Amino acid sequence: MQYLTAGESHGEKLVIVIDDVPCGIALSEKEINFELKRRSSGPGRSIRQDSESNTCKIVSGVNDGKTTGNPVCVEIPNSNDNPESNNNIVRPGHADLNGVIKYNLDDCENVAERASARETAARIVAGVIAKNMLAEFEVEVYGFVTSIGAVKIKLDETNMPGTLPDMSSIAMSEVMCPDAKASEKIIKQIDRAREAGESLGGSIRLVAVGLVPGLGGYSQGYSRLDSKIAAAVASVPSVKEIEFGSAAYVSENVGSVGLDNIVKDASGGFVRETNFAGGLEGGMTNGMPLVVSAKVRPCPTIKKHVKTIDLETMDGVSAASDKRSDVCVVPNVAVVCESELALCLANEFMDKFGRDSLSDIKFAVDAYKHRIKEMK
Amino acid sequence: MQYLTAGESHGEKLVIVIDDVPCGIALSEKEINFELKRRSSGPGRSIRQDSESNTCKIVSGVNDGKTTGNPVCVEIPNSNDNPESNNNIVRPGHADLNGVIKYNLDDCENVAERASARETAARIVAGVIAKNMLAEFEVEVYGFVTSIGAVKIKLDETNMPGTLPDMSSIAMSEVMCPDAKASEKIIKQIDRAREAGESLGGSIRLVAVGLVPGLGGYSQGYSRLDSKIAAAVASVPSVKEIEFGSAAYVSENVGSVGLDNIVKDASGGFVRETNFAGGLEGGMTNGMPLVVSAKVRPCPTIKKHVKTIDLETMDGVSAASDKRSDVCVVPNVAVVCESELALCLANEFMDKFGRDSLSDIKFAVDAYKHRIKEMK
Amino acid sequence: MQYLTAGESHGEKLVIVIDDVPCGIALSEKEINFELKRRSSGPGRSIRQDSESNTCKIVSGVNDGKTTGNPVCVEIPNSNDNPESNNNIVRPGHADLNGVIKYNLDDCENVAERASARETAARIVAGVIAKNMLAEFEVEVYGFVTSIGAVKIKLDETNMPGTLPDMSSIAMSEVMCPDAKASEKIIKQIDRAREAGESLGGSIRLVAVGLVPGLGGYSQGYSRLDSKIAAAVASVPSVKEIEFGSAAYVSENVGSVGLDNIVKDASGGFVRETNFAGGLEGGMTNGMPLVVSAKVRPCPTIKKHVKTIDLETMDGVSAASDKRSDVCVVPNVAVVCESELALCLANEFMDKFGRDSLSDIKFAVDAYKHRIKEMK
Amino acid sequence: MQYLTAGESHGEKLVIVIDDVPCGIALSEKEINFELKRRSSGPGRSIRQDSESNTCKIVSGVNDGKTTGNPVCVEIPNSNDNPESNNNIVRPGHADLNGVIKYNLDDCENVAERASARETAARIVAGVIAKNMLAEFEVEVYGFVTSIGAVKIKLDETNMPGTLPDMSSIAMSEVMCPDAKASEKIIKQIDRAREAGESLGGSIRLVAVGLVPGLGGYSQGYSRLDSKIAAAVASVPSVKEIEFGSAAYVSENVGSVGLDNIVKDASGGFVRETNFAGGLEGGMTNGMPLVVSAKVRPCPTIKKHVKTIDLETMDGVSAASDKRSDVCVVPNVAVVCESELALCLANEFMDKFGRDSLSDIKFAVDAYKHRIKEMK
Repeated sequence: MQYLTAGESHGEKLVIVIDDVPCGIALSEKEINFELKRRSSGPGRSIRQDSESNTCKIVSGVNDGKTTGNPVCVEIPNSNDNPESNNNIVRPGHADLNGVIKYNLDDCENVAERASARETAARIVAGVIAKNMLAEFEVEVYGFVTSIGAVKIKLDETNMPGTLPDMSSIAMSEVMCPDAKASEKIIKQIDRAREAGESLGGSIRLVAVGLVPGLGGYSQGYSRLDSKIAAAVASVPSVKEIEFGSAAYVSENVGSVGLDNIVKDASGGFVRETNFAGGLEGGMTNGMPLVVSAKVRPCPTIKKHVKTIDLETMDGVSAASDKRSDVCVVPNVAVVCESELALCLANEFMDKFGRDSLSDIKFAVDAYKHRIKEMK
Repeated sequence: MQYLTAGESHGEKLVIVIDDVPCGIALSEKEINFELKRRSSGPGRSIRQDSESNTCKIVSGVNDGKTTGNPVCVEIPNSNDNPESNNNIVRPGHADLNGVIKYNLDDCENVAERASARETAARIVAGVIAKNMLAEFEVEVYGFVTSIGAVKIKLDETNMPGTLPDMSSIAMSEVMCPDAKASEKIIKQIDRAREAGESLGGSIRLVAVGLVPGLGGYSQGYSRLDSKIAAAVASVPSVKEIEFGSAAYVSENVGSVGLDNIVKDASGGFVRETNFAGGLEGGMTNGMPLVVSAKVRPCPTIKKHVKTIDLETMDGVSAASDKRSDVCVVPNVAVVCESELALCLANEFMDKFGRDSLSDIKFAVDAYKHRIKEMK
Repeated sequence: MQYLTAGESHGEKLVIVIDDVPCGIALSEKEINFELKRRSSGPGRSIRQDSESNTCKIVSGVNDGKTTGNPVCVEIPNSNDNPESNNNIVRPGHADLNGVIKYNLDDCENVAERASARETAARIVAGVIAKNMLAEFEVEVYGFVTSIGAVKIKLDETNMPGTLPDMSSIAMSEVMCPDAKASEKIIKQIDRAREAGESLGGSIRLVAVGLVPGLGGYSQGYSRLDSKIAAAVASVPSVKEIEFGSAAYVSENVGSVGLDNIVKDASGGFVRETNFAGGLEGGMTNGMPLVVSAKVRPCPTIKKHVKTIDLETMDGVSAASDKRSDVCVVPNVAVVCESELALCLANEFMDKFGRDSLSDIKFAVDAYKHRIKEMK
Repeated sequence: MQYLTAGESHGEKLVIVIDDVPCGIALSEKEINFELKRRSSGPGRSIRQDSESNTCKIVSGVNDGKTTGNPVCVEIPNSNDNPESNNNIVRPGHADLNGVIKYNLDDCENVAERASARETAARIVAGVIAKNMLAEFEVEVYGFVTSIGAVKIKLDETNMPGTLPDMSSIAMSEVMCPDAKASEKIIKQIDRAREAGESLGGSIRLVAVGLVPGLGGYSQGYSRLDSKIAAAVASVPSVKEIEFGSAAYVSENVGSVGLDNIVKDASGGFVRETNFAGGLEGGMTNGMPLVVSAKVRPCPTIKKHVKTIDLETMDGVSAASDKRSDVCVVPNVAVVCESELALCLANEFMDKFGRDSLSDIKFAVDAYKHRIKEMK
């Protein structure tokens, strides 16, 4: 599945076209809208988000609630608020100045309109398709917040199934944090940051459970699933670090500490005693939960004054960002990262098990699972 | 420039073919051998490395010491030591078991032979071409070690030019660490780990200086240079975390702390007062030093006994790895990452400024630099 | 520039998203509509075409009549006629049966809706952008009809500039045929075919003039411009043969007959005395007019009864196609092929001379032209 | 499966690296050498061909006579004849002049060395792998000569299985022509052309039998198998026309003449009464024999004097090509085209049915065939 998105943040709408979608995957506007809402809401978002449209329209590629094999096109209208920014004042931490230089522009309007994180709303559609496809193979992809600002939750470095937070505890939190107390602290911290005219970053964790071993590869560097996942997650604006498993912990300890022994489980299948590696060995899934973490920088658009350049005069100026800026988008970035990770994994399934008809792919996946079971 | 590598770690040789190489880039076996040596040497490597061949042969694509526009093929013979491992005993932390499952194999010989980090020797060739090309645009790419095991050096989070280590201090260290005292500690630590039958991981930092602003992009997620660099660096085996600039620091502080103000320098050019972002804003270079860090897990092949599976009996076993294993490859991983980063950036230059003839590309780069200068 | 199209022939609309479009190319709905009209009109089209919408809307990527570097999205609403076909009766010569098998479907509705040539309307948008970009380099791409059914015009096999039809003679013909008498005969022939419930195929020729030498390449098979152009032209439904220059003539004569001598023109530039090769030598443009021909099969949807299968009963049936079928689309296929060829060539310019800003690309093209001039 | 080739025609050797090769495909040097011999021999080749090496060495990716999933590398040494050409005299019909301009070179040595058809020897390796893989699915790909110079064989335009020449009649001909009398005439014609210092072109036909329906697609223009095959065949030097089925015949007749009715065969499967379309409908295979023809221009290197340019003086000169030139390579081009077509089809199988293990892919193909059978 490949997609292209189009649309500016204050244009009429965002559009996504996704090609190479297998036939037979459930897809509804309601599901997409639900995920769009997850992407845009939360205590850290600006009032502007309330006016952000989360009501999509499926234009093509779906019939009777299922994909048809035809390209899927979905559009998401933008709400009608007008941009108020001064297009001559390039904003630090944004694409503004680099984009003006790259494209030889006079001001940064075109840049700001497209480089905006609003674009990621369109990607959510691909994520819903990918998640629904993966669900057919009993694979679940989800994300959660592990820190915002100074508030961090304690994580078990082994990443074993039992230690991973369940989805309901995440869903119960307004900030997608499975620890209820930490959630409270985070919300208070966001309030304080808002008052101070500041923004907050943090960390997220992505988990995929139910994967077969052998996705990815090692024949070339680019075959490695680590490389593909890193590209997918780092394509999300504001993501500035990607970590597999407990890399920080493992890399500062001696080798025997972070090594995941291979043993057989009760049913005779191969499992690891620990999952420090986060489900990836040798560029491939190993059947353990895939665990990928990302660090999210604070939004660069803040009320405080920052030094920058006025493109009209080419002089330095001190500028404050507009009042409706987001204080914290960490949970929302997690939602977009879920989409990108799900799409990456769905494509691995298609490359390994074929495409076109979901029923054919399922047949091949089942045969593979059966082959693995027979090994024991 | 795209490349494919081939060859097994105990086969006759490694081979790399690189296509779409501009005409006119200096390339010699001597330079490649020098980098191959950097990739394989150091106090953490096993005795086996001494017998690893670092003497390449240029087969095609070079005439009179310069690339010709034809595909570059280089081969690197393997030394004649024979593998001694038991191909039925899959090694935890390696591709072995996942590869056997993926390809429906009886034992892990084919997997171990190709998934070996020996493959990265071939990639070094692409890195030398890329570095030599970038040097023509006054771009320098280099890497260094920032921690091994428990020994860490202090880094300035601003990533400003003056705070970055100079290449000579790195070159003087046996472990590519710019801090002489830390280097000593690291070497002692490696000796202790060797005695204990252990291995060590750590962290590296990659820097590229001299880049023009506007490389990368934001029109799609995959246009973002963050995504491309993450894919490139994460394609290197053992890399388990990728960080841009001071992401960890920035993400746990409020927004104003990590924001890089835009100001004009003495000559009227646009610079940032700080470089927390590590040279990337909005998916593009901003002309400041590009700073990317990576965490490297310890080698999983250790003398200590680990639990695993014997493929012949399908029973659990306790196995010790062979005696010649590497204790620490962190500096060597840095060399491979340099190659991948350099190639990624060279391709950005080609995409933005054209291809085929180095002189034509230089002309376009100079015109772009001139255009930027005229902005002030 | 890459594009994805979406939309079914009786859905709400067609959509195209084009990424990697340089900034600064003129683009208007009027121009696109003009080309859409060329694609859908003519004496061979069915009445249905009259109701086909040729009124597009630019959704994104354009500001003040010029591309912005952002993805261009354009939508083309479908007119409101409803499909009347029996989705259980697969039509010979169409995607119907193969598509049902491929995607594991019950009937051919989804297949017929997407595999319809209506999809090519969306591609026209990419063609307009490409043509407008090429015009900036003084490159002109156009197509014309060389035969329909039994009526053929005489072509000069040398393909020299003076022998190629001028665009005005093509524009004056209702069937895009530069020979006025042949045009008349063709129109009469179309009328007879309509009466007989038949359809007609034919041949077209595409020409690109003003190209610099050295586009394309030979470093790999896929570098060859012949390969890229063949892929582009053969991607247009109904095209069943692609010919470069006077390949048929050249291949049945001895070598010296079809060889294009290299000489210098009055201004000292390199030209060929003849252009049998159609502007391509060694996988690259040689600066002579690029000449590519294509054969177009007759529309398979005809009033006559054909034997086929009823998917509901799985029995053989004899079926007549619907009354509104096209009798001859050869000129319209030429318009779509123009688009695909123009896009292919525009991408060659971007790969060779860089991207992002049209002004930067023009600078590089001019420098290249200057370098060639200096050779003499 | 993707490949890159490297090597110059008078360098030490040619090299091919092929990635993404499924595990379990038979591959031997003997088979490759046999095909290399087919590619280089015949009455039309120069004496030089006798000294051309056809003895390859498998470097990697094969174990016990089967592919391992690792990249396959094969090298083909060049024989030790030295080039004698004058690198300042660019040869009409070759890449020489365009390549010099493209890469900003002083003479055409590098161009002539790489743009030589010798490069296609390396591609043969990929073809052998693809053919051996396709054989596992009972698909056979072969080519034959249908005309050389003025001698043409009569072809049945219906392209029905019974009308296609059998492989033994092709193998019996020195010029790969299934008609024994035509073969004789062709050989005599080649002799006459040699005496006259001329060269000869002609036509070939490629056939693939045993394909499942539904390979290729229609979701985008580039999904169409026509487009992919055209790119593959047109990537072969000297191919200047590509035709699907009986396109020339079909396009000059009314629609009902060339339409392939769909009927059920004795076993209840879907077949076509005729095969004018050459096995492709709607961008997909339909299960009938795939028939693709190509026209091959005469070799441009002839003994006769031609006008060209001396790069040293930049003056026009009259030059004769070297004595060892080939008179006719049409059969040999057919062999290379077989390789490219087979690779294209093998990749379609992998995209549709998955990759990695040949046994897994076979399982998926068999399930698909079973599903189709159940439709009746």
